[in-house]
Amino acid sequence: MTQTYLEEFKNPERILMGAGPSSVHPRVLQAMTKPVIGHLDPDFFQVMDEVGQMLRTVFHTTNFMTAPLSSTGTGAMEAACFNILEDGDKVIICRNGYFGDRLADIARRGGAETIILDAPWGKPVDLNALENELKKHQDVKMVGVVHAETSTGVLTPLTEIIELVHSHNSLILVDAVTSLGGHDFRMDEWDIDVAYSASQKCLGSPPGLAPITIGPRAEEVIKTRPSEVQSFYFNLKDLETYWSQTRAYHHTSPISMTYALRESLRMMMEEGLENRINRHSKVASALRAGVSAIGLDILSEEEYRLNPLTPVVVPDGIDEADVRRQLLQDYKIEVSGALGELRGKVWRVGLMGESARETNVFAFLSAMESILSKSGYEVAFGASLAAAQRALITFDE
Amino acid sequence: MTQTYLEEFKNPERILMGAGPSSVHPRVLQAMTKPVIGHLDPDFFQVMDEVGQMLRTVFHTTNFMTAPLSSTGTGAMEAACFNILEDGDKVIICRNGYFGDRLADIARRGGAETIILDAPWGKPVDLNALENELKKHQDVKMVGVVHAETSTGVLTPLTEIIELVHSHNSLILVDAVTSLGGHDFRMDEWDIDVAYSASQKCLGSPPGLAPITIGPRAEEVIKTRPSEVQSFYFNLKDLETYWSQTRAYHHTSPISMTYALRESLRMMMEEGLENRINRHSKVASALRAGVSAIGLDILSEEEYRLNPLTPVVVPDGIDEADVRRQLLQDYKIEVSGALGELRGKVWRVGLMGESARETNVFAFLSAMESILSKSGYEVAFGASLAAAQRALITFDE
Repeated sequence: MTQTYLEEFKNPERILMGAGPSSVHPRVLQAMTKPVIGHLDPDFFQVMDEVGQMLRTVFHTTNFMTAPLSSTGTGAMEAACFNILEDGDKVIICRNGYFGDRLADIARRGGAETIILDAPWGKPVDLNALENELKKHQDVKMVGVVHAETSTGVLTPLTEIIELVHSHNSLILVDAVTSLGGHDFRMDEWDIDVAYSASQKCLGSPPGLAPITIGPRAEEVIKTRPSEVQSFYFNLKDLETYWSQTRAYHHTSPISMTYALRESLRMMMEEGLENRINRHSKVASALRAGVSAIGLDILSEEEYRLNPLTPVVVPDGIDEADVRRQLLQDYKIEVSGALGELRGKVWRVGLMGESARETNVFAFLSAMESILSKSGYEVAFGASLAAAQRALITFDE
Repeated sequence: MTQTYLEEFKNPERILMGAGPSSVHPRVLQAMTKPVIGHLDPDFFQVMDEVGQMLRTVFHTTNFMTAPLSSTGTGAMEAACFNILEDGDKVIICRNGYFGDRLADIARRGGAETIILDAPWGKPVDLNALENELKKHQDVKMVGVVHAETSTGVLTPLTEIIELVHSHNSLILVDAVTSLGGHDFRMDEWDIDVAYSASQKCLGSPPGLAPITIGPRAEEVIKTRPSEVQSFYFNLKDLETYWSQTRAYHHTSPISMTYALRESLRMMMEEGLENRINRHSKVASALRAGVSAIGLDILSEEEYRLNPLTPVVVPDGIDEADVRRQLLQDYKIEVSGALGELRGKVWRVGLMGESARETNVFAFLSAMESILSKSGYEVAFGASLAAAQRALITFDE
């Protein structure tokens, strides 16, 4: 039986244009070949400090508690909820997609009285509806919002929501998993209390780490809460003693992953954060123009569209999964199917991090023209490519 | 400010002989340079299946629920406790070191009535004392034991404990973080209900993944428990739908880390599991012989000594931290200080995975001879090296 395992992994060729992970630059992959050193090695402490400092730059924050958690973004959701909320605390979770639903699920598991504010999948969170909820419920400790709903391709504008939430003396939690590095995000200027992201989207690292940052109000809550956090692994107060100069052992950091994150953040610094966001915006505009030229609809409304992820509506008579299968098998392009109520109705096309490249837009559009045409959908060959090209030129003007 | 981050990470030279992480073979590091693919890619499903199958070989089990969790070993502790135990369940945690203490802490956080059975640090769990506890408390749902206490270098023999626990109709949880791959470990034959390990010890991967395996009784508990698991991230029932042919999305797997684990397991299969364990046993015998020849004591009793970790007692008049500092700075050797009540009294010398090599034993012993001699401790130069050499020869006879 062991014989069958004696072959080296032969990775398939892939262009990652799904909901994440995104493609990872060879420099970042190469960083993981550096020999592993100890999690209490002075040289690793320096890596931690450098990663923390670069994450502060990316989050636009001076928060001390800014570091990668040893988990994916879902773990960070859990850390954020479990460290802020205590048994019986009231929390409002704005749910306009799958990840809002997950956030509500986690808040509820943590023992919080979880009030769900629904908005239709494909729409942003509604400010007035949130105001009504905040008026209806007293003593809401926190409001949770997903900045970029990866399930629907919707970006919810944050500044008015944050102001509203704070005017009710509540904390604001923002899920920035897919927005950080792909859209403008300002932790301190917008006065956000808790935010987290994930390494494998616009930050350009492999999946496995989840940067989190904790503002002063939230830090105060974490440090003074009477009850114990139910998770040891995600206990931020204890983790801080490892991140701080105390350097007390908490758990063994994923060393190689931290090397990768350091390198991907270094590449972001070299590119410039604004340029990175601009690149996401530019390629997204080309993708949208191309998709529209094929005659396909985009689920999210123009004003609230994500750069890193475009939700393309599957036209009548086309088999969603079959197109995805052809993209993967014949063109080596991975796009994502939809989650929850959108399953089978939408392709989720990602342009994140290293995947956010013009060449990927053209690869996808040309493949889609072919596949849809073969499926009997009328296509004017080249039209989507021309539209994308024009969008790129217009973007620079 | 960004200027300061524009340098590539310059890793220091290190021989990792601490409590983990251990050194990682270049083949394993190289595996992480394979391009990232999607967590729902058919080719990644195959990687998952291969990793699961090799983990079953290493655990000696046929348990379907055998897979790496996306966390370190501490996360697996949490997963094991939180999935088995419900609010108010009774659990006995055998605490003969720092990690037993951590296990008790986590069980308690999860809401279980946690009965702690203490044994002195440096001794194994006491079978008679456990029997008394089991007689004293009715309806104990689970007993938790740390197989290899990395804090004290003690291996607790498991078979009689397991038989005792099952005769009281309790489940047995075994922490195999430091034993798996370094000592004989038989999930099915010994009839263990839950066990977990970590990637960075004797398995030879970087830190960041925690293999777990769930036996039939525990699986039944997990699948039929009336209350919800408080953790979403570590919810094993939901994770199983991703590991199984259902392949339902749960969270984004750490792809690159999984490549690394696949390669390190492949290397274990090539070496042969028995040979791997034998190698740990052989180098440990050489280290112990050498340490004794220097005149240093080993904390753990001969009968219960760990192979992967040797706790060397700091002699009177020697500064524990200063010796460690010299080892790191002058000899590039990392050993670990002790935790909790043993702090300052013991050096923890690891020989795990790729670090479990004869050359490392000689590097460490020669460095110790020099450092201790310079510190005024009387050393017969070469004596420890000769003793280690003899031990290696005797081992093969």
